[in-house]
Amino acid sequence: MRFKEMASKISQWLEESKEIVISSRVRLARNLADFSFTHWAKKEDLAKIVERVSKEAKTSSYLKNALIINLKELDDIDRQFLMERHLISREHAQGKGKERAVIIGDKEIISIMVNEEDHLRIQVTESGLNLIEAWRLATKIDNELEKGLNYAFSEKYGYLTACPTNTGTGLRASVMIHLPALVMSRQINKVLDAVSRANMAVRGIYGEGTQAQGDLFQVSNEISLGESEEEIVGHVEKAAREIMEYEKGARKRLLTQLEERVRDSVSRAYGTLCSTYTISSAETLTLLSKLRLGTSIGLAKDIDIPTLNELLILTRPAHLQEIAGKKLSAPERDVKRAAFIRSKLGIKSSE
Amino acid sequence: MRFKEMASKISQWLEESKEIVISSRVRLARNLADFSFTHWAKKEDLAKIVERVSKEAKTSSYLKNALIINLKELDDIDRQFLMERHLISREHAQGKGKERAVIIGDKEIISIMVNEEDHLRIQVTESGLNLIEAWRLATKIDNELEKGLNYAFSEKYGYLTACPTNTGTGLRASVMIHLPALVMSRQINKVLDAVSRANMAVRGIYGEGTQAQGDLFQVSNEISLGESEEEIVGHVEKAAREIMEYEKGARKRLLTQLEERVRDSVSRAYGTLCSTYTISSAETLTLLSKLRLGTSIGLAKDIDIPTLNELLILTRPAHLQEIAGKKLSAPERDVKRAAFIRSKLGIKSSE
Repeated sequence: MRFKEMASKISQWLEESKEIVISSRVRLARNLADFSFTHWAKKEDLAKIVERVSKEAKTSSYLKNALIINLKELDDIDRQFLMERHLISREHAQGKGKERAVIIGDKEIISIMVNEEDHLRIQVTESGLNLIEAWRLATKIDNELEKGLNYAFSEKYGYLTACPTNTGTGLRASVMIHLPALVMSRQINKVLDAVSRANMAVRGIYGEGTQAQGDLFQVSNEISLGESEEEIVGHVEKAAREIMEYEKGARKRLLTQLEERVRDSVSRAYGTLCSTYTISSAETLTLLSKLRLGTSIGLAKDIDIPTLNELLILTRPAHLQEIAGKKLSAPERDVKRAAFIRSKLGIKSSE
Repeated sequence: MRFKEMASKISQWLEESKEIVISSRVRLARNLADFSFTHWAKKEDLAKIVERVSKEAKTSSYLKNALIINLKELDDIDRQFLMERHLISREHAQGKGKERAVIIGDKEIISIMVNEEDHLRIQVTESGLNLIEAWRLATKIDNELEKGLNYAFSEKYGYLTACPTNTGTGLRASVMIHLPALVMSRQINKVLDAVSRANMAVRGIYGEGTQAQGDLFQVSNEISLGESEEEIVGHVEKAAREIMEYEKGARKRLLTQLEERVRDSVSRAYGTLCSTYTISSAETLTLLSKLRLGTSIGLAKDIDIPTLNELLILTRPAHLQEIAGKKLSAPERDVKRAAFIRSKLGIKSSE
């Protein structure tokens, strides 16, 4: 385990995250023309790709002081830790044995996965609803890297990728969005169905195949071919704005129709977090979600969004283990998590 | 509604109640020889019984300043209120139209139901495990009343009662006992089965046909014929002591094996009660039970037994309505209950 220091603070995009739309992310899928796609490439070639991309990254003006980490050198907890911080995907964390790396820029805004499904996955994450800024920065990094790397590109199809759904722009724009009122009032499926019909994908907080937890959802474009980058970014941003309005409407109705119940649920969530001695990761996310809702509708005055953001990430299983500096069983983590939460809230309440 | 003042304080036996065995009660069933049993008696006769017993009670040295209440003059909430305080049975509260009364002694230690199943049901309740004291006092009152009342008594069978299970001594000795650790460790059924095999009855906190709530059980003798009064009282007291030992053993094991979980559950119960804005009667009893367990094993330092005793009774539905001075719907009561609990705990925590 080697991320003890990093595990005690949160990334900039989360630190500054806002209500409802927590963060915006753009990723570009790129491949090097001189090598087979990751899944077909030989081990030596994968190593060469890591080497070539790392070398180029070091020259980039956006990646000064970047961490270049070979995932093979990490243990399971370290890799899970990077996944919990959204720096690498679940697939990248699990891809056993394969030569692969991640390049992490200052403040964790930029991360480049090397030899995930594609040779390069350039990711930029910004706080709140800010896809355009994320897209601009991703494009700048991409342009810089392209000077030294020979990307696989077709005049007809655009950027070539391992999976055809990414071919074209290779762009995926996504937002992480917090929808507790839509969940509580059972309108969430209606809204998510409408999102799907607009060719958007809805996923859990750790991407494809993961479950929504703590009322957090990821909404992104489904395909990247046939639309310009600007159109894709614009469509996702528009969808996010619409969902945000639905959520705001649901919050207003909840406050009008069920104020006492919502107040009770928010207040109990705070009471439980202040008094627990053993708590699971899932329950923590559920309670934090209620408090996040509470702060936005004025019902949780004892806690603020920065504290909630900290608790959201620092209570994740691998974070707790990095801070402890050792592997912990689930019951041990539950006790550590409870102690950590109480100490965080204790500091707040005695201020 | 007429018990607003009474509803703001608790009876002496509960105020002084101890851990595990909350209270001990003895009741004597008696009937007047000159009248049919309650269920067969004419309305005029029932009225005469009320009159005769009331007159005699007024002369008793144990019933100075006693309240004599004709239940027909009370509304539903008043009658439920008396039942919640264990001053009358559920049957007595519900016996619509029938001429019936209750005589309540000072500090609510003595209560005599008139025209319940039997003409007289003389009840004495003491704190903790103290059946002998309760039995002595009940006998003294009984002897005094017998001077002026002609009891139905047979040399062969003893005191005659409406139901044969009460014939003989007419005595029922019961204890209200708090068994959270046996419930939590799933040993409760085993223990209660053993109790039943020893010819004891186990009931919920409001007597026959009511459910156990908040881990509170009533244990009493099943029959009252063929044993002396002393034997009956002795057997129930012995059974209570044995159950108490089982519960103590279960508490020790819980603390050894599951300390973190028990600490969590106790602490969360306190956190929830401090922060709730709407809470049902059932959930309140569940949480109070955890805190009562917590105080006895040193895990609930923010609260004491007297406060728990107060909350146990003053949060009951009819109590809340007596204090409010009006009929309240269930959701209204839940909000009032939460406010009452918060205020009680707030006062405690700011001391």
